[in-house]
Amino acid sequence: MFIPNINFSKMPPSYLFSEVARRVSAYRSHHPSVDIIRMDIGDVSLPLPEPVVHAMTKAVADMGTYAGFHGYGPEQGYGFLREKIAEADYAARGITHITPEDIFISDGAKSDCGNLGDLFGHNVRIAVADPVYPVYVDANVIDGRAGTLEHGRWSNITYLPGSFDNGFLPPLPAEDAASGSPAPDVIYLCSPGNPTGAAMTVSQLKEWVDYALRHRSLIIFDSAYEAYVTEEGVARSIYEVEGAERCAIEVRSFSKTAGFTGVRCGYTVVPATLTYPGEDGEEMSLQKMWLRRQCTKFNGVGYIVQRGAEALYTPEGQKAVRRHIDAYMANAKALRASLLKHGCQVTGGVNSPYVWFKPQSDLDSWQLFDLLLDRLHLTSTPGAGFGEAGNGCIRFTGFNTSDNTQEAIRRISDLWPI
Amino acid sequence: MFIPNINFSKMPPSYLFSEVARRVSAYRSHHPSVDIIRMDIGDVSLPLPEPVVHAMTKAVADMGTYAGFHGYGPEQGYGFLREKIAEADYAARGITHITPEDIFISDGAKSDCGNLGDLFGHNVRIAVADPVYPVYVDANVIDGRAGTLEHGRWSNITYLPGSFDNGFLPPLPAEDAASGSPAPDVIYLCSPGNPTGAAMTVSQLKEWVDYALRHRSLIIFDSAYEAYVTEEGVARSIYEVEGAERCAIEVRSFSKTAGFTGVRCGYTVVPATLTYPGEDGEEMSLQKMWLRRQCTKFNGVGYIVQRGAEALYTPEGQKAVRRHIDAYMANAKALRASLLKHGCQVTGGVNSPYVWFKPQSDLDSWQLFDLLLDRLHLTSTPGAGFGEAGNGCIRFTGFNTSDNTQEAIRRISDLWPI
Repeated sequence: MFIPNINFSKMPPSYLFSEVARRVSAYRSHHPSVDIIRMDIGDVSLPLPEPVVHAMTKAVADMGTYAGFHGYGPEQGYGFLREKIAEADYAARGITHITPEDIFISDGAKSDCGNLGDLFGHNVRIAVADPVYPVYVDANVIDGRAGTLEHGRWSNITYLPGSFDNGFLPPLPAEDAASGSPAPDVIYLCSPGNPTGAAMTVSQLKEWVDYALRHRSLIIFDSAYEAYVTEEGVARSIYEVEGAERCAIEVRSFSKTAGFTGVRCGYTVVPATLTYPGEDGEEMSLQKMWLRRQCTKFNGVGYIVQRGAEALYTPEGQKAVRRHIDAYMANAKALRASLLKHGCQVTGGVNSPYVWFKPQSDLDSWQLFDLLLDRLHLTSTPGAGFGEAGNGCIRFTGFNTSDNTQEAIRRISDLWPI
Repeated sequence: MFIPNINFSKMPPSYLFSEVARRVSAYRSHHPSVDIIRMDIGDVSLPLPEPVVHAMTKAVADMGTYAGFHGYGPEQGYGFLREKIAEADYAARGITHITPEDIFISDGAKSDCGNLGDLFGHNVRIAVADPVYPVYVDANVIDGRAGTLEHGRWSNITYLPGSFDNGFLPPLPAEDAASGSPAPDVIYLCSPGNPTGAAMTVSQLKEWVDYALRHRSLIIFDSAYEAYVTEEGVARSIYEVEGAERCAIEVRSFSKTAGFTGVRCGYTVVPATLTYPGEDGEEMSLQKMWLRRQCTKFNGVGYIVQRGAEALYTPEGQKAVRRHIDAYMANAKALRASLLKHGCQVTGGVNSPYVWFKPQSDLDSWQLFDLLLDRLHLTSTPGAGFGEAGNGCIRFTGFNTSDNTQEAIRRISDLWPI
């Protein structure tokens, strides 16, 4: 008899964004004439850049001809794209040890963040920041590594709580034996962070790399928002830190840099130098394992999409990306300034399109969510949906249009304190 | 310390198609002037149909405008595509109980065949035909369900051996206690089959559905090649059999019907009626589990690609698909006739683009492969790469161009017996 994966029954029934959608939809049905501005979702609003449209149009036309047709491509992605990534995103920024062979083109950061679990031994212990992007935890729940859920926390997961005191930069796990819990085997880090927008400097990140090398932990470094870094000294890649190529996988996406949320393309770096001893003590190459995983359970990203991504590495493509980032960052900065002016505690909005804040209030996140929706007609993402330490906080996004963002700020100014 | 998934170290190092590529490449480097015809790979050769090119060109242009831009889509796929599939591929063929809610758009059958393992309990026992598409087995090895490899067979997998005697239709597992092995919990069936081209009739498939219902097994029915069915009575969908909606998931692809191998789109049907008892005896819905899985580890298929797939359901799109299928089937039929004429045992080439054969010879598959390459300058896929019971056999594909296929047949006629 077939036995289903029982871990699914352990998961709370509703995913954060579905619950937000449900509440918004219910509100709309009772207030059909209200003009609601969506400040919640992480989706972008600007159309695809012209160089991408041009390249994809050409690729579609090519695919309709005998000479230009491309069938199955390499599971790892085409060399033409991997070479440009290695050059522009790494070598040109002084990271010369990342090669095209280390790069795996994917259909997005979410797929890779989820599927990388296939590389983990069954009983590895994971650590996540709190609050955190829900996929890291949920994927490990499905994979059976999370233990049991008690008061909103999984028994086999180490939570690294953020607060306005530590700027929502997750603290290193305790290392003394007295702490009672062993060093985590896999550490998910996201910087600039989702949802808090907090971003680590290279020297802060070095502490994590040193920790991982000391304990032979693996870091999954999600840098989907690296293009939003504006401050000197803030890390855009974990490979800016020496030794990271021996303890870290880096996950990236074109979603937020070039509006690829509906195109689906990203990439993951698994350096050849990343090895860990297997059962018999022999070193196992995570790059070889990931290649084998992708060759077995994935068939590569479409040719047309990869040609679109390649166009981002032309001078016109780079300019277009810059324009997108600047527009979203202008929104985020304006939101940040407005919320600070009204006495909120705020992170993000400096190296990140997200603004994370706590009003002077004792309301919990979902109460704040309902209040913002009802009084200001703004949607938001409740911080509690990202973990216990996020309760009382709200995430706003800079991804809406400039006009909508300005209108949101007007509503805040008119009606604050809510 | 991070412990890698040790199952990767249990897997034989080389994947079938890589080994073929390696041998072809080595041969080429020693015989640079030889004109090799590729009769091995399952990739298509005809360019994308015009209606698809037209629809994707429009979708790309839309994505470059504010009004036509689409960001994140539903993880399950757009309703416009799921509705057309439910109507044209099911309702119009008399299968009225499959709804758009049962359909999940994916980036291809390989991803789904691999990732569906996330729904399985850890210790379920799987059964596969032998020979078989390697992904079913390899994905379960990665997931830790295969046991240990002994003489080319995994200890926890039930193999259902095909032969020319049973037409390479896998036999039902033994049901008597004396057989010593329990009924499998998950059964992978592929019909029309890869690599053998053998196809089950509705009444043959009914035996499997009855077996699965009797034992509460789950069938993963891979019908990526259903469009190649030409004979009356041969099943195109497992849901033609009553009760299959309570024991089967169906996986489909646009790769071989419309040349989408380099576009990446397919779909999987997980009916709402498909439930199995969980640990506490309560029925778990596989549809809900799969939706949760896809929402956690996948972010949907790109908008442009889904618009391209939608175009296949227009009258022009259907005609184009028919033209592709007819062209490949003409190749397959001609190959089949030629091999039969030269005394080979043959399956496939009737309801399938694959032709599977065994010459009058005691050579093993890889010896035959080398001989075909060296004497006829034809590549092929060695049957042994699909499982022990495939040894001594070879798979040819009908996916090459008509000219190349005719030339391959000329070489066979001139030089047989090899």
